[in-house]
Amino acid sequence: MTNLSTLTNHQIRLAARPMGLPKRDGWSFTEEPVTEPAAGGIVVKTLSLSLDPAMRGWMNEGKSYIPPVGIGEVMRAGGIGKVIASANPKFAVGDTVTGPLGVQEYASFDEVGIKRGGVSKIDLHVGSINQWLNVLGMPGMTGYFGLMDVGQPGLTKAGETVVVSGAAGAVGQTVGQLAKIKGCRVVGIAGGKAKCDWVVNELGFDACIDYKASPSSVKDGLKEHCPNGVDIYFDNVGGEILDTVLTRINKKARIIICGAISQYNNTTAVQGPKNYLSLLVNRARMEGIVVFDYADRYSIAIAEMAGYLREGKMKSKEDVVVGLDTFPESLLKLFNGENFGKLVLQVAGV
Amino acid sequence: MTNLSTLTNHQIRLAARPMGLPKRDGWSFTEEPVTEPAAGGIVVKTLSLSLDPAMRGWMNEGKSYIPPVGIGEVMRAGGIGKVIASANPKFAVGDTVTGPLGVQEYASFDEVGIKRGGVSKIDLHVGSINQWLNVLGMPGMTGYFGLMDVGQPGLTKAGETVVVSGAAGAVGQTVGQLAKIKGCRVVGIAGGKAKCDWVVNELGFDACIDYKASPSSVKDGLKEHCPNGVDIYFDNVGGEILDTVLTRINKKARIIICGAISQYNNTTAVQGPKNYLSLLVNRARMEGIVVFDYADRYSIAIAEMAGYLREGKMKSKEDVVVGLDTFPESLLKLFNGENFGKLVLQVAGV
Repeated sequence: MTNLSTLTNHQIRLAARPMGLPKRDGWSFTEEPVTEPAAGGIVVKTLSLSLDPAMRGWMNEGKSYIPPVGIGEVMRAGGIGKVIASANPKFAVGDTVTGPLGVQEYASFDEVGIKRGGVSKIDLHVGSINQWLNVLGMPGMTGYFGLMDVGQPGLTKAGETVVVSGAAGAVGQTVGQLAKIKGCRVVGIAGGKAKCDWVVNELGFDACIDYKASPSSVKDGLKEHCPNGVDIYFDNVGGEILDTVLTRINKKARIIICGAISQYNNTTAVQGPKNYLSLLVNRARMEGIVVFDYADRYSIAIAEMAGYLREGKMKSKEDVVVGLDTFPESLLKLFNGENFGKLVLQVAGV
Repeated sequence: MTNLSTLTNHQIRLAARPMGLPKRDGWSFTEEPVTEPAAGGIVVKTLSLSLDPAMRGWMNEGKSYIPPVGIGEVMRAGGIGKVIASANPKFAVGDTVTGPLGVQEYASFDEVGIKRGGVSKIDLHVGSINQWLNVLGMPGMTGYFGLMDVGQPGLTKAGETVVVSGAAGAVGQTVGQLAKIKGCRVVGIAGGKAKCDWVVNELGFDACIDYKASPSSVKDGLKEHCPNGVDIYFDNVGGEILDTVLTRINKKARIIICGAISQYNNTTAVQGPKNYLSLLVNRARMEGIVVFDYADRYSIAIAEMAGYLREGKMKSKEDVVVGLDTFPESLLKLFNGENFGKLVLQVAGV
């Protein structure tokens, strides 16, 4: 049993709403004592945090699918931690849990917070901490429900062609591998030869287009690798790539709008897809996904994905950076495309 | 029995692919003799033609849902005519038919052409010629299947809010009235007070926003008239109006992409919806419709719509211009918003 009074909680809080890329001076670094949980509550020591493109959106003011992080609040982040104090019969000291820990070393939840935040125990025999933040976590769930529920592989025919951008990223690697398992032809789009090679050679995608190779590489690559057109496009990036894919979609195609990382740090207006009338011509659909809508089915999806991991049908790759203090710079790796695999911030060792 | 050899067929052909608005010098005016139909064929005298925004798209080169009209070909147009000669047992001289007559005084179909073009008899007791080109014709079918199949009124709750642009146009008037019949709150968007008044007072829409009234009238009007947000947006116009509606949509909203008349005569790139990430935030869907996909269900929809006409639950308004020669200028009424109701070109009296 940890003596909480000896602990200091280092936290990173949102100090100002960023314009463009969030810089270090937009964060504040605070310390707080760690206190005993009230009845029904728990205290969790943060082990690893999930760094995701969606975090950039949470920093903006305005209506979204989730309220923005308030100025002065600890930055929102999902993560994995160990229960170090419990006044809740459902959690024992030593349990490993996942939940909205925030960018801090210790997270305290009262009974309401446990429920609202979906804090739940995880089994490290099913997957590693990193995998629980990746394939078995929010990115994996996003890929799973985005592909299966919105994309509906097989809607028009067996062996549909699926294209996924951000193919080496957290969501992309799940989407592509799952689409292969479901019998689709899968073409990734990623930045750089190393990522493309990994996606094809390790994950088994049919092809991967390096969007950085040349200004016309996406256009040329789609023509070459999707000779029968695109039935499902899982979009994590927006911008020019979305527009180019729109020129290659098939009748009744589905475009899953999961994110638009190319647009998140714009200081001007978002670039709208000027080829959106391809939706009309092709009676196609563009639809948004927010993973939280599927919370009541996470356990089913996790069981399925854990099976694929166990059988070696699905692999995962994480890019682990270490140290809470590195958070401001580590987050930026997502936006310059530096991360290779799901970006994880390791805050403490197990 | 008409002596065909005494007749001359005046035709309007596409002479050049237009840049921007199609001008008179982009058409050629030709004459041909009318000849007896071969076995299985018919000759139809054009009474009235449907002038539609989609015609502009058919004049462009490139892949679309239908091949472009070739240079030198008679301009494609749907219409109503009278059979004046028949070598087909299914059609008698005097029958009124609908089909792809083209912009010409007489249309000849062989047996294959009758089938391919969907030439079929219509009953003028069910609706007038103008109504057969409007509520009971392609625009009505587009509105019906776009709203019912893609829009799915009632998907999230009873009494959903439906917004339709081009509200006084052919498709818009059907969509709005049908949505009212199906129990929705209906807000139109149209250009000018006269159209807005008609839509509210005659068609029974709950409100209509005059987009010409001020630069902020659509934004302000949606706020005022859609206090509970927008569940279905039936888009006939694209551009700024689409972008503004995107800021007001509800969770699980459906946006039906039927057309983008504001963009058809652009000489620069189409304006993409810069607010498309609202689809993500709201888990909403943007989907295109092409009416031809529903051909096997036209008869069901026509029967339903004819019932509403008979019961006075649905009204229709047509803007009739007279004379084949006026075609080049009459078509432009669609693009400057001059037409009030479904635009019909009357070529000959009954």
